[in-house]
Amino acid sequence: MIPERSWQQRLHASLTLATTPENRYFQMATCDEHGIPHNRTVVFRELESSPEALLIVSDLRTEKCQHLQSNRNVSGCWYFSQTREQYRFACQGEVLTSSGHHNLLEAHWQRLSEPGRQQYFRNQLHASEYFDCSGRGFPLENYPPQFCVIRLIIERVDYLSVAEQPHERIMFEKSSDGSWLGSQIDP
Amino acid sequence: MIPERSWQQRLHASLTLATTPENRYFQMATCDEHGIPHNRTVVFRELESSPEALLIVSDLRTEKCQHLQSNRNVSGCWYFSQTREQYRFACQGEVLTSSGHHNLLEAHWQRLSEPGRQQYFRNQLHASEYFDCSGRGFPLENYPPQFCVIRLIIERVDYLSVAEQPHERIMFEKSSDGSWLGSQIDP
Repeated sequence: MIPERSWQQRLHASLTLATTPENRYFQMATCDEHGIPHNRTVVFRELESSPEALLIVSDLRTEKCQHLQSNRNVSGCWYFSQTREQYRFACQGEVLTSSGHHNLLEAHWQRLSEPGRQQYFRNQLHASEYFDCSGRGFPLENYPPQFCVIRLIIERVDYLSVAEQPHERIMFEKSSDGSWLGSQIDP
Repeated sequence: MIPERSWQQRLHASLTLATTPENRYFQMATCDEHGIPHNRTVVFRELESSPEALLIVSDLRTEKCQHLQSNRNVSGCWYFSQTREQYRFACQGEVLTSSGHHNLLEAHWQRLSEPGRQQYFRNQLHASEYFDCSGRGFPLENYPPQFCVIRLIIERVDYLSVAEQPHERIMFEKSSDGSWLGSQIDP
């Protein structure tokens, strides 16, 4: 049975119905070089299309950026508590830096709150070296070299709704031509 | 600086303060035999002590039970949205079946709701073979062979609180004698 709505339509609806900040978080799992999984909560920033990708912002010094150097596979698990829907995203992750992606980084930096920006300068003795220290301007106005965007290119979406009995589960897989095919499976 | 409270005390407080059902869920990541992470939401059932372990219930036919056969490493990520605390649990997972663990399985089965029990019989043509079909008793009263408990033995806890600025992060590591040592680290 072919599902009526695409995962993109479902995710758009989930995001529209979600009214609490927690619904903007999801859990991102990576594997280290020893095959050990590592899981953490991240903040959703943007959904790109063509190809579909989840964007988050991060710091190059974090464990997750290091893991992506040796293993690009990522599993994102996003649970919407209000609508009781779960999306499991099988992704390929890539770390985007100022080299080649300045405009994207700049746009995401500008959207961060001041406390959000300050996170990038904690425990950093020489933060001032990255800035014009002449006294002009605000020191948090430009992103530091360790700021990055992680792009999680989505290859498969395992959708589950537990709002009603029986539960509904649909597997959306990407074809080689970039189109998506969904099929209902046993929850 | 040695943290004032253990992770067990913190988790107990987080659970006590959490008033919404979502705070009983966490995300469990496993790695398959190709080193690909898989992440899903699971329901917390119990915290064992000596050794400390998170228990969940599951179905032997699920992917996560299969992954644990070849790779026991699990990363549990538990975010408490109300108190804005995250626990990342590095665990060794084991699948407990009726063979040797009947009483534990029985206790957890009895605590499940009727819809919770019915999940284990979906898409199963011969469910009746597991039961006394004489008409006596309620068919959901005994757990089926595919019902299991997954024990996640905790080896490390990475605690993060983002409730206040600056954020607080503490790494709790288990010593060889089973005691826990915590140290504050850079968030």
